[in-house]
Amino acid sequence: MEELTIPFHEAEPLYEQIYKYIKTQMREGRLPAGTRLPSTRKLAGHLGVSRSTTQLAYDQLVAEGYLQSEPCRGYFAARLETVVHLETKKSGEERQEKACASPYLVDFSLRGIDLDSFPYALWRRLARESLRDENRELFSAGENKGDIGLRQAVCGYLYGARGVCCRPEQLIVGAGNEYLLMLLHQLLGNQAIAMETPTYRQAFLVFKRLGNSVIPVSMDGNGMKREELAASGAKIAYVMPSHQFPTGIVMPIGRRMELLSWASEEEGRYLIEDDYDSEFRYWGKPIPSLQSADTKGRVIYLGSFSRAVAPAIRISYLMLPEPLLALYEETCSFYASTVSRIDQRIMAGFIGEGHYERHLNRMRGIYRAKHDAILRALSPLSDTFTISGERAGIHILLHSKNGRTEQELVRTAKDGGVRVYGLSEFDIGESGRKERGGTVLLGYASLTREKIEQGAALLAAALLA
Amino acid sequence: MEELTIPFHEAEPLYEQIYKYIKTQMREGRLPAGTRLPSTRKLAGHLGVSRSTTQLAYDQLVAEGYLQSEPCRGYFAARLETVVHLETKKSGEERQEKACASPYLVDFSLRGIDLDSFPYALWRRLARESLRDENRELFSAGENKGDIGLRQAVCGYLYGARGVCCRPEQLIVGAGNEYLLMLLHQLLGNQAIAMETPTYRQAFLVFKRLGNSVIPVSMDGNGMKREELAASGAKIAYVMPSHQFPTGIVMPIGRRMELLSWASEEEGRYLIEDDYDSEFRYWGKPIPSLQSADTKGRVIYLGSFSRAVAPAIRISYLMLPEPLLALYEETCSFYASTVSRIDQRIMAGFIGEGHYERHLNRMRGIYRAKHDAILRALSPLSDTFTISGERAGIHILLHSKNGRTEQELVRTAKDGGVRVYGLSEFDIGESGRKERGGTVLLGYASLTREKIEQGAALLAAALLA
Repeated sequence: MEELTIPFHEAEPLYEQIYKYIKTQMREGRLPAGTRLPSTRKLAGHLGVSRSTTQLAYDQLVAEGYLQSEPCRGYFAARLETVVHLETKKSGEERQEKACASPYLVDFSLRGIDLDSFPYALWRRLARESLRDENRELFSAGENKGDIGLRQAVCGYLYGARGVCCRPEQLIVGAGNEYLLMLLHQLLGNQAIAMETPTYRQAFLVFKRLGNSVIPVSMDGNGMKREELAASGAKIAYVMPSHQFPTGIVMPIGRRMELLSWASEEEGRYLIEDDYDSEFRYWGKPIPSLQSADTKGRVIYLGSFSRAVAPAIRISYLMLPEPLLALYEETCSFYASTVSRIDQRIMAGFIGEGHYERHLNRMRGIYRAKHDAILRALSPLSDTFTISGERAGIHILLHSKNGRTEQELVRTAKDGGVRVYGLSEFDIGESGRKERGGTVLLGYASLTREKIEQGAALLAAALLA
Repeated sequence: MEELTIPFHEAEPLYEQIYKYIKTQMREGRLPAGTRLPSTRKLAGHLGVSRSTTQLAYDQLVAEGYLQSEPCRGYFAARLETVVHLETKKSGEERQEKACASPYLVDFSLRGIDLDSFPYALWRRLARESLRDENRELFSAGENKGDIGLRQAVCGYLYGARGVCCRPEQLIVGAGNEYLLMLLHQLLGNQAIAMETPTYRQAFLVFKRLGNSVIPVSMDGNGMKREELAASGAKIAYVMPSHQFPTGIVMPIGRRMELLSWASEEEGRYLIEDDYDSEFRYWGKPIPSLQSADTKGRVIYLGSFSRAVAPAIRISYLMLPEPLLALYEETCSFYASTVSRIDQRIMAGFIGEGHYERHLNRMRGIYRAKHDAILRALSPLSDTFTISGERAGIHILLHSKNGRTEQELVRTAKDGGVRVYGLSEFDIGESGRKERGGTVLLGYASLTREKIEQGAALLAAALLA
């Protein structure tokens, strides 16, 4: 471990310096293949940095194949010839760029959540209990829609928290939203799909990939424009009424009724409601789901535990209205479930024993504190910028009031060491793009309060300079 | 528990009598909602039956909503009004039929594996270790293709055990074969796919569902006929060279070379090799994969841990040859992984620490003993039947030598209390159906040796009567 004394300097993030140091040591043969590295905990203590810093450095080295992480043994230097052929040129280059050339001190990333607050000990207990000998049946094939215990638990949660009214057999549990959209595509066929612009790119990519034509529909302050939707000719509209991504627009009940009435005007029209971060709302009354106002069975409801619990827990759920449920039973019910039954049991316990609700309450408090911190820290910008999309979710939007362009904002922030994201990255059509002023997005979920304050201060200084 | 004294009789399987007894008690109000039931272990001891019998009864009752299983608390009687609306009429009826009217003493089911031999304690240990505090990063989003640690471990295993030659970045880890076929479909597009007839129905259903036209190609004793494949016009052929399902045909190297040469004759031709139960081979040298003989990058290799480890562990892998890998990187690499990172870590440890190989060796011994037992017990039939598909896998085929039809065999077996499966259930075309004699399939993986011997004796008696 003496060898791992790193001459830190201030120009780069610490984790990157650790990462580069170990990589150089390996390339120069000073850490031969098979050498066991100190644990992230020990190294952090040794270097006087935080655990997450050493973890980040090791993660990057593992991702690039320099280190091998062996369960219950630790981290080991990999054989370097293997590293070379493990990396495709392209991904190697990307990683290189990502790891070595980061000019950012703070990244207001829109991905990631606050994992420091994840209830690890509880999860371990639930996992241990699910794996007890008495639960051997969990290793045999389960129900195709997902095990009834989990579907009942999700139903109960959705009814209580989101006003979603459904029976457990309307729910299909699947390994992530993208898989469930693939399944849904098989029910809906190759239809034109109306999407808000800007929108959630991942869903857009899935629809395009599956061969749907996607029609961008613009929004006003209340969300997707009804007339434009009607004129689009699409039979399916994908919307995020509780907190549109990325604009943060909350669709009021009037617009919701308009969309529901559009859907009921013609056979085969459906609204896909992606309720992706409805759990986090800081001001005002909770807004029930669009599905809860649907009396005609026109809403397909899509939800996930990725943001509310953890991205690596691949459990999402799709609620089908009756006509689509019948079609599913007839044509798609042969597909086996894509989620391990053990994970299903853990999640069912997490919800059923009340932990999920408590976890959400706790996370709401944590995110609210971060949310308040970012708003406070950005207040020096209030003369020249407005903020929107606050009050819910885990990101905000910053709009220039004096005509600065998005590119200018992103560049200026970068020069100040801060990464922010241009709104236009999420555009899927031209509509609305020209009229709006320069707008950037700041995600804050995965940052500590200190990092948020540091980043906002750097950003304000750069933008006011 | 005194109430749960069941007057057993011999006409029905014990689990079914327990199931019916509890259901009746509930319907007649003698087990009010919320009543806690004895554990499966206690009830088994009390009634003098095996744990798996009581477990089976409880599983069925949970599946139908009569009981609720609460993690770490036990089984409870459900509220009966809720039961009614939990069941769709259709699935309710099916279950009824399945549970109440089973006329079989022994079911040579083709589904299921021997789960009594699953290494539960080891799996728990690996799970515990994966969930340690140091592994917090496992809860954040991982690599889209699957974490490199698992892909490296799978690569190493495939190379050693199956001769599959690939780099970890050619592998995509996904939640089950069906999901991976959906992904593959997005790379191959809507092409005609040649499949052996009879074949694995689940893959057939996926292809049909995704809109592929499926062209049945008949087999001779060496597998898919090359001329018929060439004449089919298909560019893609789906084959199971190591142990064709359901016929058990092992494709010799000559036919393999013919198929590989067919594939290399035209741009865009591929062979999908589903290596579904290659792990279990009892006689002769192990046969390497078709992929190992592929020098032109025309084989797409598909494998899974469902049979070799457990059906509920939803981890499969798809190996893409270079041209398809490039297409994947370009068009599909945005899809997030569908497998939980914790499960990936457990599986990587299971393989990497050598447990998988030991487990396979152990299971091979267990299945071989069952395989030998079924062959021995069926030997009284040797004058009028031939057996094929033995030597590998976990099922055998029984062919009538004196013109008895498949329906006759299935019915006669049923009258003798034994469930066997007609080969024609797996036909996807007319070819070969008429010429062949009556043939039935017997799966033995999930039965005990005693059950296998009992079933085979009953079957022999019925067929010889």
